[in-house]
Amino acid sequence: MNHLTTMSELSPAEIENLIYEAKALKNGKTDTHLAGKFIANLFFEPSTRTRFSFEVAEKKLGMNVLNLDGTSTSVQKGETLYDTIRTLESIGVDACVIRHSEDEYYKELIGRVNIPILNAGDGCGQHPTQSLLDLMTINEEFNCFKDLTVSIHGDIKHSRVARSNAEVLTRLGARVLFSGPAEWQDEQNPFGTYVSTDEAIKSSDVVMLLRIQNERHQSAVSQEDYLKRFGLTMERTKNMQQHAIIMHPAPVNRGVEIDHELVESKKSRIFRQMENGVFIRMAVLKRALETNVKRGEANYVISH
Amino acid sequence: MNHLTTMSELSPAEIENLIYEAKALKNGKTDTHLAGKFIANLFFEPSTRTRFSFEVAEKKLGMNVLNLDGTSTSVQKGETLYDTIRTLESIGVDACVIRHSEDEYYKELIGRVNIPILNAGDGCGQHPTQSLLDLMTINEEFNCFKDLTVSIHGDIKHSRVARSNAEVLTRLGARVLFSGPAEWQDEQNPFGTYVSTDEAIKSSDVVMLLRIQNERHQSAVSQEDYLKRFGLTMERTKNMQQHAIIMHPAPVNRGVEIDHELVESKKSRIFRQMENGVFIRMAVLKRALETNVKRGEANYVISH
Amino acid sequence: MNHLTTMSELSPAEIENLIYEAKALKNGKTDTHLAGKFIANLFFEPSTRTRFSFEVAEKKLGMNVLNLDGTSTSVQKGETLYDTIRTLESIGVDACVIRHSEDEYYKELIGRVNIPILNAGDGCGQHPTQSLLDLMTINEEFNCFKDLTVSIHGDIKHSRVARSNAEVLTRLGARVLFSGPAEWQDEQNPFGTYVSTDEAIKSSDVVMLLRIQNERHQSAVSQEDYLKRFGLTMERTKNMQQHAIIMHPAPVNRGVEIDHELVESKKSRIFRQMENGVFIRMAVLKRALETNVKRGEANYVISH
Repeated sequence: MNHLTTMSELSPAEIENLIYEAKALKNGKTDTHLAGKFIANLFFEPSTRTRFSFEVAEKKLGMNVLNLDGTSTSVQKGETLYDTIRTLESIGVDACVIRHSEDEYYKELIGRVNIPILNAGDGCGQHPTQSLLDLMTINEEFNCFKDLTVSIHGDIKHSRVARSNAEVLTRLGARVLFSGPAEWQDEQNPFGTYVSTDEAIKSSDVVMLLRIQNERHQSAVSQEDYLKRFGLTMERTKNMQQHAIIMHPAPVNRGVEIDHELVESKKSRIFRQMENGVFIRMAVLKRALETNVKRGEANYVISH
Repeated sequence: MNHLTTMSELSPAEIENLIYEAKALKNGKTDTHLAGKFIANLFFEPSTRTRFSFEVAEKKLGMNVLNLDGTSTSVQKGETLYDTIRTLESIGVDACVIRHSEDEYYKELIGRVNIPILNAGDGCGQHPTQSLLDLMTINEEFNCFKDLTVSIHGDIKHSRVARSNAEVLTRLGARVLFSGPAEWQDEQNPFGTYVSTDEAIKSSDVVMLLRIQNERHQSAVSQEDYLKRFGLTMERTKNMQQHAIIMHPAPVNRGVEIDHELVESKKSRIFRQMENGVFIRMAVLKRALETNVKRGEANYVISH
Repeated sequence: MNHLTTMSELSPAEIENLIYEAKALKNGKTDTHLAGKFIANLFFEPSTRTRFSFEVAEKKLGMNVLNLDGTSTSVQKGETLYDTIRTLESIGVDACVIRHSEDEYYKELIGRVNIPILNAGDGCGQHPTQSLLDLMTINEEFNCFKDLTVSIHGDIKHSRVARSNAEVLTRLGARVLFSGPAEWQDEQNPFGTYVSTDEAIKSSDVVMLLRIQNERHQSAVSQEDYLKRFGLTMERTKNMQQHAIIMHPAPVNRGVEIDHELVESKKSRIFRQMENGVFIRMAVLKRALETNVKRGEANYVISH
């Protein structure tokens, strides 16, 4: 059984294996080892995109899916997250995907529950499957990470993507640049160098834009202003290197982080990232449950 | 790939084919061509009845179903409908069923997305699968449409059913009568003649009642009054022709549009309509995806 | 076709059969008779725990599951529950699981609908599958019910568990004790004798705690006070009999009904109860549909 809560718990070799497996699945490899197993998707914060991506991954593997969205929950009745997961374990659930508004919600679970926890985003913490699909997309393009320059643009401080990606990219040998409004610089994140937007765009192999999360905080600058000052405009793409690509975790605020017309341009890998997400999540699910095979074969019965 | 957004895009021959196929499925024909494909039901307006009908149709065809109900959506995050559908396409969804409060929401999608869109109701616009199930129910009874008299009773102006059905029935050779409060007459709809409720009921082969949609607008008359003045009372059914039938798209406001006791009477086809809806939707799904078979065989991978 | 609305409609022999079948399923017996049938879970009151337990049971039997949670419903549009169920019947649903805030909501259905209704909790009424899983758990421990002493602790008056269990346990030959705040005594329930908390705990084979349902009413005593005066403390367990067990329908308010550390202690069967719930529900589903097999074989077509 393998949890996945942060990127830092994955070694470079494990990351390589996950990308390798995801590529094989994308190329048509099928897998029935997890067929019939039960998985619960617990999204205490709404995220249709991530939930649907996991659900497609799960169903392609033949798993039985239980969905819990946001409000309609026993947690309303004051139950702890630990008791909720232990309940799911008791009724035969084999793994849980969880998104939660609280940072490191998983700390009350790890070491105490007997089924793998897959973090689909914790507060302002991490979002490891997003990070892995980003790595897969970069890998498809450049085949390696060493000596690549990746610039991350926007709200570095509150972004799960910035946090997960800066650490792992640095560890894999890439150079990380940060760029964006000064108010959003993150002094806790040592894995990048702050430069101006123009400087970052000019020197990057990968221009990675972050979403302006209006639902999380008041914008430091107006939306109209943001594109001109910090976003990726048509004008700025002229300074991008020939081979450089554009990435964004989506959903995109068209005309804020990025010019409308660039979203589906030749340099953009934004929809490719979403496509890769399904296969990365299939690989993560296989990793999560690989040591649980015996239990699954025993008709999912838990013996206490 | 075939979208279905309005009835007017279907030729009489296509309508006949869909009814023929739906009848075959109702008589026990099975079909596994769509098994394993992914479909997303996006209901931005709640409608349990229509969503469940589609979901049963989809699952009888062996499809993998993703459900998005109303509020828990990325659209909250300011994403356009186009980006939502392109996302679903990217993660491997093969077709989308959409209900939306906006008229002609599908116009921003058609010609731009690569998966079929099935309209399950747009604002005060159309509801083509409801129209098709109505046609199937009439066809089961009378075998043809030519020279039938169909009266539509109620809020002609705001009804998707009135809009879809009046056009297609006229095109198929039936005579359409409208009846109801003067405030709800629809000057934009040229496909019917306004007559009194008594006149309409007396001369119809099909008495088609509409739902008073209190959630859409203030009622022009009180509910108590409505039945007496414009509804189908026990008294009025005495003037119906022997062979005439009663239809209603449901949910029924018992005692408003129709006398409580008539809902399940011998002349009523109301629950038959619901039953037929599943088979019509199976036929529509088959039509939607028939030219997509190759893509499905390639393990749903989208190549950009 | 067999409804299940209250425990009192089950004979001792039927209860024994259900427990026998559930144990067989728990021991690995598989069953494919219901595969492909459609079931709708209608939860007009939220209950993730019970809904997930039913959903796992249904999917282990290979059924197609339709979920309706709380608010997103035609019932908003003023439809009666009877019309909702008749609709589901018309679209091919083979059975309905219903939780509803109204006592005896099922009375408007029984004898009028043609598919089995499985009550998953009605207002302050009954919760028969919870009662059956409790009986299964007691049976696993003691092999019989005759002459056992079972004490039920807490809000006797408003608890579906107290109501269902006291009647059936008495009928099966057990002695039932009630205990808790005087305000929560239930004069309508003749199947138990009120004693003090200490007296109940000392003389019980089964100590069955109820949940303080803060969402239903103002607590008669403060939460801090409750544990000390009426709850199961570490101190009180010292007076439990050696072989006695602790049960709770969950979700548990840790530190209110029961000391935090006792929830997963050796005497506790709380998570065992949840595990058993899945198998009891599988048995109940089989019982519900056993006389419907022919209809299922005919491709779920309803003929009117």
